[in-house]
Amino acid sequence: DLTIGAIPGYTDINAGWTLQSGYLVFFMQAGFAMLCAGAVRAKNAKNIILLNLLDACLGSMCWYITGFAFAFGDPTAADDGTYAWYSPFIGHRFFAMNQLPRTSYVTWFFQFTFAATGATIVSGAVAERCRFESYLLYEMMLVSLVYPVVAHWVWSPFGWLSAGRNTATVSGSYLLFSGSGVYDFAGDGPVHMVGGFASLAGAWILGPRLGRFDAAGNPIDMPGHNASLNLLGVFVLWFGWYGFNPGSTNAIVGSAVGYSKISAAIAVNTTVAAAAACLSTLFLTMAINYFTSGVIVWDLIIAGNGALGGLVAITGPCAFVQTWAAIIIGLFAGGVYIIASRVNLNLLKIDDPLDAIAVHAGCAVWGMIAGAAFADLGMVEDYYGASPYGEDTTREYGFIMGGGGKLLGAHLVYIICIAAWVLGIMGPYFFILKRLGIFRVSPEVETAGLDASYHGGHAYPHEVTGKGQAYKNEA
Amino acid sequence: DLTIGAIPGYTDINAGWTLQSGYLVFFMQAGFAMLCAGAVRAKNAKNIILLNLLDACLGSMCWYITGFAFAFGDPTAADDGTYAWYSPFIGHRFFAMNQLPRTSYVTWFFQFTFAATGATIVSGAVAERCRFESYLLYEMMLVSLVYPVVAHWVWSPFGWLSAGRNTATVSGSYLLFSGSGVYDFAGDGPVHMVGGFASLAGAWILGPRLGRFDAAGNPIDMPGHNASLNLLGVFVLWFGWYGFNPGSTNAIVGSAVGYSKISAAIAVNTTVAAAAACLSTLFLTMAINYFTSGVIVWDLIIAGNGALGGLVAITGPCAFVQTWAAIIIGLFAGGVYIIASRVNLNLLKIDDPLDAIAVHAGCAVWGMIAGAAFADLGMVEDYYGASPYGEDTTREYGFIMGGGGKLLGAHLVYIICIAAWVLGIMGPYFFILKRLGIFRVSPEVETAGLDASYHGGHAYPHEVTGKGQAYKNEA
Amino acid sequence: DLTIGAIPGYTDINAGWTLQSGYLVFFMQAGFAMLCAGAVRAKNAKNIILLNLLDACLGSMCWYITGFAFAFGDPTAADDGTYAWYSPFIGHRFFAMNQLPRTSYVTWFFQFTFAATGATIVSGAVAERCRFESYLLYEMMLVSLVYPVVAHWVWSPFGWLSAGRNTATVSGSYLLFSGSGVYDFAGDGPVHMVGGFASLAGAWILGPRLGRFDAAGNPIDMPGHNASLNLLGVFVLWFGWYGFNPGSTNAIVGSAVGYSKISAAIAVNTTVAAAAACLSTLFLTMAINYFTSGVIVWDLIIAGNGALGGLVAITGPCAFVQTWAAIIIGLFAGGVYIIASRVNLNLLKIDDPLDAIAVHAGCAVWGMIAGAAFADLGMVEDYYGASPYGEDTTREYGFIMGGGGKLLGAHLVYIICIAAWVLGIMGPYFFILKRLGIFRVSPEVETAGLDASYHGGHAYPHEVTGKGQAYKNEA
Repeated sequence: DLTIGAIPGYTDINAGWTLQSGYLVFFMQAGFAMLCAGAVRAKNAKNIILLNLLDACLGSMCWYITGFAFAFGDPTAADDGTYAWYSPFIGHRFFAMNQLPRTSYVTWFFQFTFAATGATIVSGAVAERCRFESYLLYEMMLVSLVYPVVAHWVWSPFGWLSAGRNTATVSGSYLLFSGSGVYDFAGDGPVHMVGGFASLAGAWILGPRLGRFDAAGNPIDMPGHNASLNLLGVFVLWFGWYGFNPGSTNAIVGSAVGYSKISAAIAVNTTVAAAAACLSTLFLTMAINYFTSGVIVWDLIIAGNGALGGLVAITGPCAFVQTWAAIIIGLFAGGVYIIASRVNLNLLKIDDPLDAIAVHAGCAVWGMIAGAAFADLGMVEDYYGASPYGEDTTREYGFIMGGGGKLLGAHLVYIICIAAWVLGIMGPYFFILKRLGIFRVSPEVETAGLDASYHGGHAYPHEVTGKGQAYKNEA
Repeated sequence: DLTIGAIPGYTDINAGWTLQSGYLVFFMQAGFAMLCAGAVRAKNAKNIILLNLLDACLGSMCWYITGFAFAFGDPTAADDGTYAWYSPFIGHRFFAMNQLPRTSYVTWFFQFTFAATGATIVSGAVAERCRFESYLLYEMMLVSLVYPVVAHWVWSPFGWLSAGRNTATVSGSYLLFSGSGVYDFAGDGPVHMVGGFASLAGAWILGPRLGRFDAAGNPIDMPGHNASLNLLGVFVLWFGWYGFNPGSTNAIVGSAVGYSKISAAIAVNTTVAAAAACLSTLFLTMAINYFTSGVIVWDLIIAGNGALGGLVAITGPCAFVQTWAAIIIGLFAGGVYIIASRVNLNLLKIDDPLDAIAVHAGCAVWGMIAGAAFADLGMVEDYYGASPYGEDTTREYGFIMGGGGKLLGAHLVYIICIAAWVLGIMGPYFFILKRLGIFRVSPEVETAGLDASYHGGHAYPHEVTGKGQAYKNEA
Repeated sequence: DLTIGAIPGYTDINAGWTLQSGYLVFFMQAGFAMLCAGAVRAKNAKNIILLNLLDACLGSMCWYITGFAFAFGDPTAADDGTYAWYSPFIGHRFFAMNQLPRTSYVTWFFQFTFAATGATIVSGAVAERCRFESYLLYEMMLVSLVYPVVAHWVWSPFGWLSAGRNTATVSGSYLLFSGSGVYDFAGDGPVHMVGGFASLAGAWILGPRLGRFDAAGNPIDMPGHNASLNLLGVFVLWFGWYGFNPGSTNAIVGSAVGYSKISAAIAVNTTVAAAAACLSTLFLTMAINYFTSGVIVWDLIIAGNGALGGLVAITGPCAFVQTWAAIIIGLFAGGVYIIASRVNLNLLKIDDPLDAIAVHAGCAVWGMIAGAAFADLGMVEDYYGASPYGEDTTREYGFIMGGGGKLLGAHLVYIICIAAWVLGIMGPYFFILKRLGIFRVSPEVETAGLDASYHGGHAYPHEVTGKGQAYKNEA
């Protein structure tokens, strides 16, 4: 029965935990960069790594100027516990960290690493054909405005969908949306749906890479140049996810149940969901190939994407489900990823070089639905506390666990609103870039490769000359 | 004079330390994957990375179902401190985490990362020729049964070789085996000997890669395709080892001496042992080459393996030896690695692409012997507490430090029993797989490469076409 | 108002924070290794990775024997708080960890990782032409003597330039040098200036790589073989820097303001400075290229170096400046890096394959000057405590913030003394190596590549044969 801060120094300890978790999330930028680099052709490796680097660099500037303010710029309580104003849709303080208390710097840093992660998802979907300058414009829009608003909705105690609302932070007609609010622990919405839906808009409007479909519209395989780098990225992302999910407690000491128990259950859930999704993806893909072509193929790249899909799916419900449920969520995430990927490619004819839409949007939607199905009452109340509706009530929980459908309703509204918000802003934005003729490189540049055209030369210059050991200056 | 939990929240803090250490150990999977990928030929890179990925994925499922239960499924003490049953050889509770208290989830996660590390060692020894399906069968056997039993012997307080046994956990004829029990701090036995001896069985029964020996039986050099990836793996493993060794305190606050002092000494020992082993391997190999061929060669791959050998050797005794002893242990580990590697290759004609047997089994055996030689009484009692034999007695310690031979006896029994257990199970198991004709790929597949045959294509597709920049679809 | 150690266990917690930060700094070795490997030609990849590996291995042995002793071998206070001797210029206890208290092992480890980082900087500047044996001699000199002395000056409470001096640790004519002492929080001096100035001496005396300049003395572009590895290195280094800078508090609990607030502000400053420097480098380089050649080039390698330059620049002042100042420091660091790099290459005709001089020496000098300009009084006193000159005085702070020029004076003396110390030792040392004919490889070896000549073969053997998939033994 320990309240945070009850013992001097515990706030410091929790801040240290949060900082270190943020370092791991930041390291996911390295994972994305390697994942993307390996998954594109060698001629575009420098381009996509630069996009990933700028997701962190330009992203931090955008987060500094408006991003954090829109997401977490909430009012401070007066001495009597009331607030001068309410902000259910968007925050509006702390622009450029102005008046931000030093105790909140750790939150600024931690949340920045999440925003940068969300932004970087799109780099994969638009790879190998998007103009560099347009990507910078996209990045600014996403981190400055699109991501922060969704983060505010669900993570600010004032947010209209937040499960952390209480009688003090609420001025409107309801306390918790749908009687439950949304249980999105580590960001299936702000990070993965936002990144995934923006990927959908970008890849669709940008059109497929040259040669990705034949004259009949059938996809032609276009493998990345380096499977080792690709999988290095998967391992680094998985490692970084231990900052993303268990670190999102933002505390290790305190709360009635003890934050370490929550974080440990999340670490276990994160692990088994990723593992189960990797396995189901691997075996399902093998089976599909076998029954359609008679050949047994154990596809490494697909398996790696499956692991990422499992990590995405468990991100939202990780603190609220039992381990067995996390395994089920992972197993289905593999199937969701495969179906979403095939619908994208074969039905919608969308060329998404990294399968970012299927992994991030697809599995995040599944994750939120699964959370509405499997959320365990005890775990929900361990984290969010008792129901704010009074002593005789409980928090809403998963419909498979006997909790009814209110939570599912909230989650479906959440999914729809994020889709509308992201597609409603990014769709027209990308369309305007396209109309201005600055969204996509010329066919000549695309054929020659972005690196030789815009980035000063090939990532592996000796491969171009064909002389592995020698180099032109050495003769 | 602080007991864990004396201050509310300290259990949480220690759980946080353990979780974060577990993340680092998990990251060793990335290190092994890159180490192995770089050390094999390009045509098998995807295969071996997939094996490493499945060590984590399939491994976590096996750990969930039986692994943790066999290793740590011990009884709970009754109110009077007694136990309803004893389990000196194998645990048998908590299958599928059933009835596992939430406070133990952190242990489950931390110990899972160790089991996955042990399993992944074998992927290197059987690389480039083992059938994918057989590797999955091996993996299941190792993580479900072989590893957990050894872990139980030495790390469960009921284990027959454990130095943590006490009057309450013991029902048999002795308190501590050989009067000392085994001092294996971070797992030279369960992880490195298990993985190393299983590697020995696997590589031997599988036979050498095609072309590894000439007609006269002399080895032909068969270098890996990417030394940069190989060494990236070494650095990542070394980094992850700071979770493996200092993290195995499972606590940073508490104990009479203060856990942070123990962890800090371990971090120092881990560092200097790795460094000394790397140096001794590098210089010894150079000297051998120079005296046999007159040429000076500073071999990077060997030096990297030497560093890993030093890390393996110090894993068992890291908490019990002074820094100067850790340096000696490292220096000799380099020699042990070189000798073991040459015996394997030249005498036993075993083809071990990663030198996994020499690095893991060889240096782990040396580490346990070295622990019996150099264990410092003060450090032993700082960690294990005072002797359970009564006030006038001390714990056993290193024979070079004046402690007599009982500890060496215990460690030799430990080595022999692990060898017998692992070889006794995995030898027949691999042999059956061989007899069933499913252990090794066909010569045609081996020549063509596993990636093109079973994994949907080459890891670096543009290298096959010889067009560094271009790709077939682009014309 | 919490003093460290006021609550039992807080010393342990702070030791854990410091250990974990040290792990991250150690991981920077992996970052440097990949950065360097990617930036050299394929034929020298193994050589430079081995140099980086030995920076950790040989470095730890040198740190063990004399390094730590020279840096931190200070006297222990007697019971009355006085000291038997003073050591303003160099420490001289704890050789080979002799008599080092166990509570100081964590400091030994953390500081070792810094020394190794400083040493590894030079590997980039002398890459592709330095003899392996000479590099070992350099490494021993740097870690055994050159680095520790500078660390002692500024970080020992007895150091003549330290801002942590107090009336008890001072025997001479002044309390704080220039009335302020030097504010070098995480090591712009000991790590980056020492490494950078040693790089300057090494690269200059060694001379440029064959073919780096044409007959007219104009530089010829000589790109590295793998931009993906290069940037992986940048990401890993940035990640590790979160151990380097925020970890240099060596505490997370305690102090009047709370160490977590200091660390969080440092993490934010580290992020935005790196980001701003990356952006300014990218855009400045683009603009220079555009105005001189009319071509738009977004240079990934330069942008990565720019991020590193920003990280170097903020290393010294990171705990003492506001976020907005960190952004300015980063923006200018990009320009400083570009100018220093061009002066080196075009004016001084120094061939520095990694731009180590510009990134480390150039941006570290800028960082210390920037610290003298932007240091915030409140942040300085939060960390160093109140002025030791008495109640009516304050600590010195930045001249732009209204603090006068004393701090700038101290920092200029610091820069000059480090330059003199490093160049005065390493210059003659390298010159002697050159005169002995052991500093540089022969032109034949340089053309053939160091790996084939000295390291047993090419890092990517299949590239030499031109057969991506096949290997000579397989026919």
